[in-house]
Amino acid sequence: MALTTARTMPGVMELLPLDQIAFQDMLDTIRRTYERFGFLPIETPVIEFTDVLLTKTGGETERQVYFVQSTGSLKQGDEPDLALRFDLTVPLARYVAEHERSLSFPFRRYQMQRVYRGESAQRGRFREFYQADIDVIGKDALSIRYDAELPAVIYSVFRDLKIGPFTIQLNNRKIMRGFFEGLGITDGEQQTLVLREVDKLDKRGAGHVRETLTGESFALSAEVAQKILDLVQIRSHGHDDALAKLATLGQGSDTFNQGIAEMHEVLTLIRAFGVPESHYMLNLSIARGLDYYTGTVYETTLNDHPQIGSICSGGRYENLATHYTKSHLPGVGISIGATRLFWQLREAKLLGSAQSTVQVLVTQMEEASLPIYLELAMQLRNAGINTEAVMEASKLGKQFKYADRAGIRFVLVLGPDEIAKGAVTVKDLRKEDQYEVLRGDLIKTLRVELEQAAVMPLS
Amino acid sequence: MALTTARTMPGVMELLPLDQIAFQDMLDTIRRTYERFGFLPIETPVIEFTDVLLTKTGGETERQVYFVQSTGSLKQGDEPDLALRFDLTVPLARYVAEHERSLSFPFRRYQMQRVYRGESAQRGRFREFYQADIDVIGKDALSIRYDAELPAVIYSVFRDLKIGPFTIQLNNRKIMRGFFEGLGITDGEQQTLVLREVDKLDKRGAGHVRETLTGESFALSAEVAQKILDLVQIRSHGHDDALAKLATLGQGSDTFNQGIAEMHEVLTLIRAFGVPESHYMLNLSIARGLDYYTGTVYETTLNDHPQIGSICSGGRYENLATHYTKSHLPGVGISIGATRLFWQLREAKLLGSAQSTVQVLVTQMEEASLPIYLELAMQLRNAGINTEAVMEASKLGKQFKYADRAGIRFVLVLGPDEIAKGAVTVKDLRKEDQYEVLRGDLIKTLRVELEQAAVMPLS
Repeated sequence: MALTTARTMPGVMELLPLDQIAFQDMLDTIRRTYERFGFLPIETPVIEFTDVLLTKTGGETERQVYFVQSTGSLKQGDEPDLALRFDLTVPLARYVAEHERSLSFPFRRYQMQRVYRGESAQRGRFREFYQADIDVIGKDALSIRYDAELPAVIYSVFRDLKIGPFTIQLNNRKIMRGFFEGLGITDGEQQTLVLREVDKLDKRGAGHVRETLTGESFALSAEVAQKILDLVQIRSHGHDDALAKLATLGQGSDTFNQGIAEMHEVLTLIRAFGVPESHYMLNLSIARGLDYYTGTVYETTLNDHPQIGSICSGGRYENLATHYTKSHLPGVGISIGATRLFWQLREAKLLGSAQSTVQVLVTQMEEASLPIYLELAMQLRNAGINTEAVMEASKLGKQFKYADRAGIRFVLVLGPDEIAKGAVTVKDLRKEDQYEVLRGDLIKTLRVELEQAAVMPLS
Repeated sequence: MALTTARTMPGVMELLPLDQIAFQDMLDTIRRTYERFGFLPIETPVIEFTDVLLTKTGGETERQVYFVQSTGSLKQGDEPDLALRFDLTVPLARYVAEHERSLSFPFRRYQMQRVYRGESAQRGRFREFYQADIDVIGKDALSIRYDAELPAVIYSVFRDLKIGPFTIQLNNRKIMRGFFEGLGITDGEQQTLVLREVDKLDKRGAGHVRETLTGESFALSAEVAQKILDLVQIRSHGHDDALAKLATLGQGSDTFNQGIAEMHEVLTLIRAFGVPESHYMLNLSIARGLDYYTGTVYETTLNDHPQIGSICSGGRYENLATHYTKSHLPGVGISIGATRLFWQLREAKLLGSAQSTVQVLVTQMEEASLPIYLELAMQLRNAGINTEAVMEASKLGKQFKYADRAGIRFVLVLGPDEIAKGAVTVKDLRKEDQYEVLRGDLIKTLRVELEQAAVMPLS
């Protein structure tokens, strides 16, 4: 029989078990933190109706959509009326509109699922990837205070992920738009285009941005361009400096003043949430690409790895679900692209060595004692210790080698001597230690070792 | 602007947050048990190449496949070369063949992901649903002992899910095929057809099966049909009875004798794994539809809800990945259809009342004290307690009502009195109790209550 080559499509991240465990640990940490802050889980179907999914845009997003057809529909030559979601925001809007009467507002949801984009095949670009999102959705109105809660969540997530120092960068689109108004750039479309340019500041440099703004397409005066550059180059260092820099901006249009007031409240509350001032700053060049955002915007970067770019972004939006409901649903949210983040951290060698989920291997020294091994394994499992029992006899050395390769920390040996004494020999492959304990003390001993490791990883 | 109706396609299970939490609890229990037994996680992409996915069958499965096309491919009028997986077994075969050299064998993997089938729309039929699978894959050979380990896993999963008494039903296809051989039914195809008929015994009754076997399509003699019916009606009650019933079957063809020997070893080891004899039985009518299985087969039923059918099925197969590799990869596996199971348990009212993941609500009595509320909330979160802080002031009664409706157990109140005393008023909505504690004692108090609830749910 001719063989089919076993392969996956480009742009997916498929992991070997030890890497999968490390990735799962990352997702678990994010999920745990989201739940600590009182966000509720939802999951939505991967497949949505195309008319529901593609209300918003006819542009880039639609070109990247994966369409779905059942066998029957394909055979009849129908146009596909189903597609895979490309983010978790459109499904959230659909979900909130559909279940509006069953939900309590402000609705605080988290969602960690895969999304699909027909990206061109390229290293580090994913066609299937996890997003881990939280949003708070208000009915009619939503206090600016939630804009300060999300940075507290971001801080807790990345503190717990232990991937090095990071900074949450804050801006407010009202400050930007208000400032542009003051310079005579009153057209909304034009403001968006300028925002997109200044968003490139950190990547392309001030010279490039100045050239573009004074060039053909924008045709701003050198003076106006300079004023914009002076604004967007503002960065704060510490909490008091952030408030001081904000104060120096003075007064302007209503929009501008509102932006300043919002940012002032957000900064004040971020501190009340206990976020250390080393971990947040004003960065008035942050704009985020999407038109969608109307107030506060966030990006988060690793201090020692700026090339990775933003690892958690989001912001405030005016109305979540205009396409599905007449209800006014303002919200604020953030998103972590977990697949890309994991891939980048691994590339940057920021991930520790992988530990198996299997904690103990019960070896098989002699076949006749198999029932004793199985009983021991079940005792450990019932005590909450993840245990694999060797089912097929092989040389003990081979069993040790298997445990070592598989990243299993404890190997238990019960030969005739140990069985006669009611004891177990414990080999700790991590500490390279070996000792004998009584069977009655085994669970306690292993628990102590495992709890110590959880508090102080050796790695 | 015209609104689009917010809706999902038929055949998906989308849940409100409290139900989602209950479902997530079920998935977590299954995953925890799989890890206790030393199974390793993998995840595979939802989308596979069609030539990889559809090697095996041209029948029912292919008619139910969802095909996937990027926008570009659709515009060019190409045939779709991508499709959504319809189970986790074909992706496992592809995964093992692709990563064979990087894996340790026996390879023990668990996988809990969604699969897609273009089922006709019908109550209780799902087009998107979770499967929670484990398999052990051997290289060249795999000991029969693993066939006994899986029932131990099944037992632990359903014991921990606490959904009432259940029975793991065991059979071995070698016994069946060997028995048919002894009756002169030697053609493999014919044996499969007979197996499919007797599999209907519990649903359709002996009369119906007898009629079919002696009817036109099978044309077996009344005597042969009776012998088959006598065999497949065998059920055991307790461990010793299972071994005794097995012994009464006597000797037969090589295949038959091998099946008896395998079943004997499986039963003996299931007991060694500590599975109570009330929870497993011989049921020689169990066949499982798929040709795929070659030895031990399992089904699991709820004693008090037979109408639900099998809630966990599987078996032994001869060779996992014949389409992708020349390596001989025998295996044994089980699968839980978690979405359908959850839906059925809810329909049968076997699920307890939902508890929120949010454990504490910090109310807002006066706006000026917000920083104190936020600080308290962060202290609780850092102590591992899931806490929501009310960010927008409203009447205290409204805040209580919100907590009650949201399934949050503890509501904390800090008015000027409490703040002056360094105390907190705790309202326990579950116990309908209210008391004041010092802030320094709050975390300890809540932890004690939450741990008690984890051990003895009130529900």
